[in-house]
Amino acid sequence: MAKKSTVTPLHDRVIVKPAAAEEKTAGGIIIPDTAKEKPQRGTVIAAGPGKKDEPVTVKTGDTVLYGKYSGTEIQIDGQDLLIMRESDILAIV
Amino acid sequence: MAKKSTVTPLHDRVIVKPAAAEEKTAGGIIIPDTAKEKPQRGTVIAAGPGKKDEPVTVKTGDTVLYGKYSGTEIQIDGQDLLIMRESDILAIV
Amino acid sequence: MAKKSTVTPLHDRVIVKPAAAEEKTAGGIIIPDTAKEKPQRGTVIAAGPGKKDEPVTVKTGDTVLYGKYSGTEIQIDGQDLLIMRESDILAIV
Amino acid sequence: MAKKSTVTPLHDRVIVKPAAAEEKTAGGIIIPDTAKEKPQRGTVIAAGPGKKDEPVTVKTGDTVLYGKYSGTEIQIDGQDLLIMRESDILAIV
Amino acid sequence: MAKKSTVTPLHDRVIVKPAAAEEKTAGGIIIPDTAKEKPQRGTVIAAGPGKKDEPVTVKTGDTVLYGKYSGTEIQIDGQDLLIMRESDILAIV
Amino acid sequence: MAKKSTVTPLHDRVIVKPAAAEEKTAGGIIIPDTAKEKPQRGTVIAAGPGKKDEPVTVKTGDTVLYGKYSGTEIQIDGQDLLIMRESDILAIV
Amino acid sequence: MAKKSTVTPLHDRVIVKPAAAEEKTAGGIIIPDTAKEKPQRGTVIAAGPGKKDEPVTVKTGDTVLYGKYSGTEIQIDGQDLLIMRESDILAIV
Repeated sequence: MAKKSTVTPLHDRVIVKPAAAEEKTAGGIIIPDTAKEKPQRGTVIAAGPGKKDEPVTVKTGDTVLYGKYSGTEIQIDGQDLLIMRESDILAIV
Repeated sequence: MAKKSTVTPLHDRVIVKPAAAEEKTAGGIIIPDTAKEKPQRGTVIAAGPGKKDEPVTVKTGDTVLYGKYSGTEIQIDGQDLLIMRESDILAIV
Repeated sequence: MAKKSTVTPLHDRVIVKPAAAEEKTAGGIIIPDTAKEKPQRGTVIAAGPGKKDEPVTVKTGDTVLYGKYSGTEIQIDGQDLLIMRESDILAIV
Repeated sequence: MAKKSTVTPLHDRVIVKPAAAEEKTAGGIIIPDTAKEKPQRGTVIAAGPGKKDEPVTVKTGDTVLYGKYSGTEIQIDGQDLLIMRESDILAIV
Repeated sequence: MAKKSTVTPLHDRVIVKPAAAEEKTAGGIIIPDTAKEKPQRGTVIAAGPGKKDEPVTVKTGDTVLYGKYSGTEIQIDGQDLLIMRESDILAIV
Repeated sequence: MAKKSTVTPLHDRVIVKPAAAEEKTAGGIIIPDTAKEKPQRGTVIAAGPGKKDEPVTVKTGDTVLYGKYSGTEIQIDGQDLLIMRESDILAIV
Repeated sequence: MAKKSTVTPLHDRVIVKPAAAEEKTAGGIIIPDTAKEKPQRGTVIAAGPGKKDEPVTVKTGDTVLYGKYSGTEIQIDGQDLLIMRESDILAIV
């Protein structure tokens, strides 16, 4: 389970923990690290308060989908996380 | 028929299931996969609530036309879908 | 005559049927297909409802002029049409 | 004199008939067609109604100056005209 | 003195007569035409009425400073002038 | 500890003192200067008053995360600092 | 001391006299002209009235910091000055 973050995103930013990339292909073949596709699915770890008159819709614990190149990679407490604007989030699963 | 999605698009996003590409040309010749044109027609699987004061116009089940390079490809429950902003949708058929 | 379309453009989009390109030059010489200039004149087949507080000005049946590279080519009921924003339309003839 | 156009420009568009390029230099030398500078002066043939709360300032018959690469070339009733936004017009002479 | 122009700039445009480029360097050496720096100082010949709720600040006769590549060159009554938006004017001397 | 700055940022600017880059890798190997990654973590030294109706959220002493290429490097009282807009700050730790 | 300018910046422009570049390095070595870094610190010589509802914050005499490539170089009364928008000013020292 994703550890609750002690980091507070500013404004409409959201911190997302990307889901672990699948280690095996559908046929059961183990794929090397570089061939793994970056996941586009993750769990919201922390969400900012939103912008003026526009509160953020997602909340901690939501599983979300996001664009392939969305967000900035940051490392907090040893975890590789992404911080992105809520507008980079496409949908809640 | 398109399976109802359990994914909720954020704001003005819409999830569209592209129509299957035509397997045969008008003359009945079977065309290989790479030569098929990406369809620009699909079915709305899920639509977000819209933006502030601007509800989304399309609804689940609508057949829509969209631009050739619109949307981000996502895979949900094994289906290849597109998620796009409603402004990328050109018309309802 | 242009067939009435069963497609409803979204927001401020307009569907235009381009006028047939002239088959002969002024001197009566038949020009091959690739040398024909794309027409910039067409007939409105369908117009969207417009944007909030900004209804669309053109209406079905209007002959309009538009920029050379305006619009997206779509095929509806076997007709090659263009779908564009009303702001791409320059004038009503 | 410029013939009154039967074309109605949309919104803030203006149709301008470019002034004929000078056939002779100041010294009386006749210059070939390709060496003639595109004129930046023309006569307003038709003006649109303007945008919401912003009527168009120029009117049919005005001689106007415009930027070198302004407008789209269109042919109406055999005349080579330019259609441009009023914001491309620099001044009324 | 700058001749009063019969040209009326539209909206927030201003017509400026560039100051003559200095013919001599500080040391009295006459410099050839191509080595002269384009002046960034000129006299306002005519100013438009401004935009909605934003009248133009400069007035005819003001000496103004403007950016090196500001404005469009136009020729009116044999004078080489510049027409620019008031926002291209940096200061009144 | 970060010395209080005598510099007042304008509007929504924030002055940040970047955290010192780690001198050793996790395995204890000392890394040369050029191989050190620019930190993305720092301490707020001074924050501007914000923009009209939008006060700045961060305050002096906050530890913040920011994007890799955010801000302009400035030197104040011998310290290498960054000055950035508050919108470049991703989160408060 | 900076001479009071007789130039009035328009709108939100500010005229800044860059601080003289340091002639010696910390170790006392005299550096040639081309190796001197452009200063990012200067004194406000004149400030415009600001934009509608947004008066300018800096005032004549303020020492300010600005971005490396901010502003346009102008020469007034033999002084090399910079004219920039107030938004290019980062902080008041």
